[in-house]
Amino acid sequence: CAPAWSQTGNNVQFYGALDQGVESIHGTSATNQGSSVRISNGIITPHWGLRGGEDLGGGMKASFNLEGSFSVDDGTIGLGGRLWGRQAHVDLSGRFGTVSIGRQYTMVRFGWTGANPFGTGNQGLKLLDPRISNPRADNGITYVGTWGAFSAGVNYSTGWDNVNGNPATVAAANCPGETANRRQCREWSAGAKYDGGTWGVATAYERLYGGTAATFGGLTSPDKTDSRFVLTGHMKFRGTGTLAAGWIRRDNMGIATPKSDMAWVQAIVPVAGPYFLDGMLAELKYKDSANKAVLVNLRARYFLSKRTNLYITAAHMANSGTLALSATGSTPALKPLAGGAQTSVIAGILHRF
Amino acid sequence: CAPAWSQTGNNVQFYGALDQGVESIHGTSATNQGSSVRISNGIITPHWGLRGGEDLGGGMKASFNLEGSFSVDDGTIGLGGRLWGRQAHVDLSGRFGTVSIGRQYTMVRFGWTGANPFGTGNQGLKLLDPRISNPRADNGITYVGTWGAFSAGVNYSTGWDNVNGNPATVAAANCPGETANRRQCREWSAGAKYDGGTWGVATAYERLYGGTAATFGGLTSPDKTDSRFVLTGHMKFRGTGTLAAGWIRRDNMGIATPKSDMAWVQAIVPVAGPYFLDGMLAELKYKDSANKAVLVNLRARYFLSKRTNLYITAAHMANSGTLALSATGSTPALKPLAGGAQTSVIAGILHRF
Amino acid sequence: CAPAWSQTGNNVQFYGALDQGVESIHGTSATNQGSSVRISNGIITPHWGLRGGEDLGGGMKASFNLEGSFSVDDGTIGLGGRLWGRQAHVDLSGRFGTVSIGRQYTMVRFGWTGANPFGTGNQGLKLLDPRISNPRADNGITYVGTWGAFSAGVNYSTGWDNVNGNPATVAAANCPGETANRRQCREWSAGAKYDGGTWGVATAYERLYGGTAATFGGLTSPDKTDSRFVLTGHMKFRGTGTLAAGWIRRDNMGIATPKSDMAWVQAIVPVAGPYFLDGMLAELKYKDSANKAVLVNLRARYFLSKRTNLYITAAHMANSGTLALSATGSTPALKPLAGGAQTSVIAGILHRF
Repeated sequence: CAPAWSQTGNNVQFYGALDQGVESIHGTSATNQGSSVRISNGIITPHWGLRGGEDLGGGMKASFNLEGSFSVDDGTIGLGGRLWGRQAHVDLSGRFGTVSIGRQYTMVRFGWTGANPFGTGNQGLKLLDPRISNPRADNGITYVGTWGAFSAGVNYSTGWDNVNGNPATVAAANCPGETANRRQCREWSAGAKYDGGTWGVATAYERLYGGTAATFGGLTSPDKTDSRFVLTGHMKFRGTGTLAAGWIRRDNMGIATPKSDMAWVQAIVPVAGPYFLDGMLAELKYKDSANKAVLVNLRARYFLSKRTNLYITAAHMANSGTLALSATGSTPALKPLAGGAQTSVIAGILHRF
Repeated sequence: CAPAWSQTGNNVQFYGALDQGVESIHGTSATNQGSSVRISNGIITPHWGLRGGEDLGGGMKASFNLEGSFSVDDGTIGLGGRLWGRQAHVDLSGRFGTVSIGRQYTMVRFGWTGANPFGTGNQGLKLLDPRISNPRADNGITYVGTWGAFSAGVNYSTGWDNVNGNPATVAAANCPGETANRRQCREWSAGAKYDGGTWGVATAYERLYGGTAATFGGLTSPDKTDSRFVLTGHMKFRGTGTLAAGWIRRDNMGIATPKSDMAWVQAIVPVAGPYFLDGMLAELKYKDSANKAVLVNLRARYFLSKRTNLYITAAHMANSGTLALSATGSTPALKPLAGGAQTSVIAGILHRF
Repeated sequence: CAPAWSQTGNNVQFYGALDQGVESIHGTSATNQGSSVRISNGIITPHWGLRGGEDLGGGMKASFNLEGSFSVDDGTIGLGGRLWGRQAHVDLSGRFGTVSIGRQYTMVRFGWTGANPFGTGNQGLKLLDPRISNPRADNGITYVGTWGAFSAGVNYSTGWDNVNGNPATVAAANCPGETANRRQCREWSAGAKYDGGTWGVATAYERLYGGTAATFGGLTSPDKTDSRFVLTGHMKFRGTGTLAAGWIRRDNMGIATPKSDMAWVQAIVPVAGPYFLDGMLAELKYKDSANKAVLVNLRARYFLSKRTNLYITAAHMANSGTLALSATGSTPALKPLAGGAQTSVIAGILHRF
């Protein structure tokens, strides 16, 4: 008898991951005396979920996925208190592809996920662009088709964020839409990729439309949009090694200097046996502005088993201009001084179930 | 080995259902330009739960049920943020019947559920009376006995709604009761039914007592009550077909014209193989008032499997007087003009697990 | 095939318990007319959780536990709305002992749990000291080692309560810490015990540091601390019988008379077959103050099965001075008059899964 939680086929599967470690932050602003030690997650966001489905015959399948994030620090639900904040959708798939409806990833993630093996814990690319760790829309419908090594898809949302966080955050931004204005809080995205196994390239475009004065992040009217163009590539080596690079051009009318470019290179290096060394260099640069941030991320992982690993990860963020991005996403947020630098080191354990 | 989620007997069973579709609403008030397209659930409210129990010997059984609703649109918890908002109770049953204690359905639902095969998604009878989709009480104790085809029961609650929604709603109405006033926020109900297999009749009565000025819906003191008398009947045909009719007389001291009558007929028609056509006609009429609403609901379902079906459902609400009831329960609410009409059409998928 | 919910070994196990009964309270203050009948839990706090782990070889093991409380009364989540408010941690264990990281019990519970077989439902020692029912810290790291019948451990938290309850409570006290002040909202504890099977002794010490003016319970600055010294013992008789006694000296700088002593004796008496009689006598006395409370708790349990029992439990609280402690933890809180007495009787059912 297979264990309950790993049933496959038509059955429901529970799954999840916990990640918790000790973090040391240096370069927090003057009033915070410069440093802090805390307990936080490290290289992934803790989550749990259930998924299932059934074979409908004729190559067709119905399926669903409910997945929510939580904090191991304090047991609270993430993403604005949504029980299933990471994914909540029902899907129908067949030879035509897959149609999914509900809260889900948009195609913008489709564009970068192959080139971001670092993932979205408390360090990595999310520090430069928070949408890296929350590329989701409420009220969405998505179609993805696959033709051999090539796949492509489109996504449309009638209101990309129903939840008004208290306080509002990028993950609970109060843009419910779904009333009659044809653009208010709409989102659309499209993406395409080729993944031949040893190498792949992907591209995507996404546009978020603004809501009302109460919407978080400056998108205070339907005339204001936040758009991203994504272009990435990656290649495999030594079986589990990955080299990746990516570029995101963003045009965010919610802020004073809308245009920015983010570019990165990443490497996952299988050193020997259960040891991995990972590295990343990334830059975010605003157009017509002195604002710039350079992020260096280094990480060592030791796999105790396929499901459990110990890790130590370090990030250094160097801001220019008036930018004050942190080297960590852990909370409570401790920003560096404007134009200043910050370093975060987290040593911890990741366990999947 | 049976799949984990379908264990029966003493074991715990996880179960649930997702429903999501595309909705088009026409006849929203002038400021909303008259129409809206949105993503919403259709013919049921998405939910999940776990239930279990054990055989105690001598015909006795202990059991429990924890069940909560959520929105596939955005992953949030329904019913005022209650994790187990639909059901949370522990039961003891034997030859004497079943005693249940905790948050649960009251006997008022016992009176109408057989005659409401349309159910309680975003259309149907709940549009005329929201208690149709939330006939529950907190702090309740219920006894139900069965004698052949006849069954009857009583329910008492010491405080029918502990939760103060923000904003308060009918599903989080802020009537916690349980302090010393003998009537404040109490609820009681009784019901009886005969169900011979091919046909059945049922009746029920329920009374909700008011709370304080902060209680939602006008029941602002223990002297104000909201009572319903229910009388329904149904018959089966062609195996899975159902014809049903019902009547609810309500006396709600929370509003200016307390007395109203709601009456309906419903039909579930198995057309051929996996195709079903469902129809409903319902009317709500206030006494001593011009306020009236007529609801027509039509629905087609195609079963891809026992657990999964596609559907299209349409509702048209015609209000008279100053009533402004919607043709859909989806959110954000878009009311018609007072005395105006509204139409909602939802095409979607329902998947049970 | 073992049932899904009782899988052991590397697998994930779901488990939980429901408890609900009818309570009668006498001696509520004048404005509440002296008494109330309500539905509430009785001898445990309803909860559910999942736990799992895997054997890493060489005597090492990774494991995790996610556990949250809820109210059967109304389906809401307990402990400030935390999904996993009771436990959320990941552990690594081996011959060296066990290291756990995340939200978890502190070592103060290690000191008293063997001598508190009455547990922490709505009556018992928690009425005299709420930390008895919530001896947890957010952001914690714990080490426990075992050497035969002797075990000991230490715990450190970088911020013992992240959640700001609305309103704040002792279970959501708004002391997140984790910024640079080296003491703010820190917690540390240490404990040791000997448990030889037929008898055992345990001791523990814990110190909670205050936060800001917004922290609940008077710990309004890092200079204010709340400390407890615990000393307990217990012995077994007739197999399942227990005699226990304990003493907690507390020094809480958050209130006007910081020093207090709490002492208790408890007995769990297996009368015959499935019948148990339990008794407790406890006293809380403030130093340099007339404030004192004496608690008598009596309980009878009848086991329908190993997993299900019926119970009746009664508590009488006699306050002196200006103390106004209740004889029950059920909500809404109904305090006695200052210096007055209160009695609570709860008859109900407990079912574990």
